[in-house]
Amino acid sequence: MTDPTAITPDRRPGGRTARVRTQVLDAVRAELAENGHEGLTMEGVATRAGVHRTTVYRRWRDVGGLLVDVIEAAGEIDWRPPDTGSLRGDLTALNQEIQQSLVVQPSFAVALMAASFHSDQAARAQTRLWADRYAQCEIVVERAIARGELPARLTDARSLLIAATAPLYHQLVLLRADPDPQLPERAAEAAVLAAAAGAFSARRSACDPGAPS
Amino acid sequence: MTDPTAITPDRRPGGRTARVRTQVLDAVRAELAENGHEGLTMEGVATRAGVHRTTVYRRWRDVGGLLVDVIEAAGEIDWRPPDTGSLRGDLTALNQEIQQSLVVQPSFAVALMAASFHSDQAARAQTRLWADRYAQCEIVVERAIARGELPARLTDARSLLIAATAPLYHQLVLLRADPDPQLPERAAEAAVLAAAAGAFSARRSACDPGAPS
Repeated sequence: MTDPTAITPDRRPGGRTARVRTQVLDAVRAELAENGHEGLTMEGVATRAGVHRTTVYRRWRDVGGLLVDVIEAAGEIDWRPPDTGSLRGDLTALNQEIQQSLVVQPSFAVALMAASFHSDQAARAQTRLWADRYAQCEIVVERAIARGELPARLTDARSLLIAATAPLYHQLVLLRADPDPQLPERAAEAAVLAAAAGAFSARRSACDPGAPS
Repeated sequence: MTDPTAITPDRRPGGRTARVRTQVLDAVRAELAENGHEGLTMEGVATRAGVHRTTVYRRWRDVGGLLVDVIEAAGEIDWRPPDTGSLRGDLTALNQEIQQSLVVQPSFAVALMAASFHSDQAARAQTRLWADRYAQCEIVVERAIARGELPARLTDARSLLIAATAPLYHQLVLLRADPDPQLPERAAEAAVLAAAAGAFSARRSACDPGAPS
């Protein structure tokens, strides 16, 4: 049972283990989007995936395990932030992606947010995913600094990115407003204007060698 | 049974009906904050309120009815937006109130948002409450225009208010970041700088008499 060669064929990338994971996570996404977090069951996922439910229980243990893995899988996608040649263009394109993910019916993104209110495990996985995505997006701000659009070393990339994207989530998820086709660009533009006016100056810390003494 | 005088004593403001509502809604808030939306039951609320459960069923019907009423009661509070003498001061004070309501443990505000993901009735009531609150806050922008801090007729108050407040909800509710004591002021400042740079110009509509032809 512990002979590693016995399980190797199942563990190679693209092997049966990977195929089963793909089938199960596809089923989780479909069930989440259709029935929400409350409708997610191990049995429903196994049936939809066409996988024996003992396999699902053994590998994912419970609904929390399925949620964590589907969030981690979202983080494994080879996603890159937009690169349009201007900060305003990049942030607008990013906001358009966000708006699209939130207004599509049913929305997997909204279902995950709802689930994270009810599962600490899912909430932690989602917090890691958000942190990764915002870290990936910092390149958008770095490129703007390199192009001379923003003052170097004076812009806190994370604060700028949050200011640019937060109104989308606020309007569409919390306020449940109808999607406004102008919002992605308007929110991007507001953040760019605020940044140009020095709104997101990086906080200087005592250990920052560039901090004035 | 239909003699109006027979029920009048119970219906007057401050009478038994009002007292029962206060007791029941206090119990809903406490149960929501302690156990979340999923832990809310008619029986739990009746017991905590010290009210007979048939009264609770007759008047609120189900958990959705309790949620709607507790949200409507929040809208009945005589709340006024801050009036500090400057737009930046007002928005900072508003953000401090918001941050406080979101980080207090347990948070009734966060529990309501979680509930609204799972109850359409609660979601609609919450959307009305948000709309009312943002409408009440527009005076903050109007006063800034009157003081000459912002260009008249060129500022969309709602967009500005959302830009100022959205980062708080995004950081604390969706990203589950640790509260940052500087965030209320920094988010307020970014919105004020963006507004001063013309970010929230009101969209001119064809029926707006001030629109250029």
